[in-house]
Amino acid sequence: MRIYGDSRSGNCLKVKFTADHLRLGYDWQEIDIMTGACRAEEFQKLNPAGQVPVIELDDGRTLAQSNAIMLYLADGSRLIPRRRYERAKMWEWLFWEQYSHEPTIAVLRFQKQFLKTPDDELDPKKVDGGRAALKLMDDHLAKNDYFVGGRLSLADIALVAYTRWADEAGFDLAGAPDVAAWVARIEDELGITG
Amino acid sequence: MRIYGDSRSGNCLKVKFTADHLRLGYDWQEIDIMTGACRAEEFQKLNPAGQVPVIELDDGRTLAQSNAIMLYLADGSRLIPRRRYERAKMWEWLFWEQYSHEPTIAVLRFQKQFLKTPDDELDPKKVDGGRAALKLMDDHLAKNDYFVGGRLSLADIALVAYTRWADEAGFDLAGAPDVAAWVARIEDELGITG
Repeated sequence: MRIYGDSRSGNCLKVKFTADHLRLGYDWQEIDIMTGACRAEEFQKLNPAGQVPVIELDDGRTLAQSNAIMLYLADGSRLIPRRRYERAKMWEWLFWEQYSHEPTIAVLRFQKQFLKTPDDELDPKKVDGGRAALKLMDDHLAKNDYFVGGRLSLADIALVAYTRWADEAGFDLAGAPDVAAWVARIEDELGITG
Repeated sequence: MRIYGDSRSGNCLKVKFTADHLRLGYDWQEIDIMTGACRAEEFQKLNPAGQVPVIELDDGRTLAQSNAIMLYLADGSRLIPRRRYERAKMWEWLFWEQYSHEPTIAVLRFQKQFLKTPDDELDPKKVDGGRAALKLMDDHLAKNDYFVGGRLSLADIALVAYTRWADEAGFDLAGAPDVAAWVARIEDELGITG
């Protein structure tokens, strides 16, 4: 398997974290998202949507969308709860991550760190949305050590990818202590501390 | 099971279409998204994220996120491909729908039809994004009758929900003839024509 990704992108690292945790072999093909490489004709054969990450299987078939790739790689593993309702709650968090967390926290980080957008030009709705997302996570983690089923699942991996960089998006996790403790715990469990 | 939803919302109707197609019984609890009902304390017990749709199972457990609910309801049914790779491609389309289709086409429709936002105040990036989403779908449907596996799956149901209302978002499906033909076919198969 080959993984095409930019190692500064949380969406791409989710796939790496999952593959590493499950000890799956892969080649990592670094794609620089800042150079327009994703819009090149050759790349669009891998993913017509022009986004990383993408995986290419040994037979040439491809798969895009970070959370779909994680679900594919982890199919049948301990990272997906066996109980039907817990599995569904994991899906709920995965879709919430892509709709309410990534478009606020990851996009603000991208604008601040990569596009160097000045703070007063950031969309205040995204700032409010990011704060609300962290609050929702903190409320959940005040009562739970993990997002679903009392143990590590894809929901934790998907959510930790950008939450661990929340400071780069302008958010201070000191205001969300249960999130901060969970980030440290998941980084440790995935072996990505430091 | 009870489904809480606003019947003017494609995200809510996805859940209804899936339940109806699988002949699952439910009570429909209409929630008016324009009155702030989703932000009421009572509703937030069902879904802390304050969004519809939500389902409440007979034992009181709840589940949110339209595509997660569809996956839960259709678990083990013919709406989910049995082959591992095809199932993953269905997930890819479901996540793409929530990240690139719904935030452009559904949000523009909401702004135009519900908030009565004048056209010159709509975000041109969303208009471009919606057009790109329809182009990507049209390219795929030029070579395929369905999104995955040559038959109806959750990918079609998720994508048809707002695509059938693309005109209300300001898009003319005359420019995407394969999408238009697919919408008619899926509406017919789901019994929602007219």
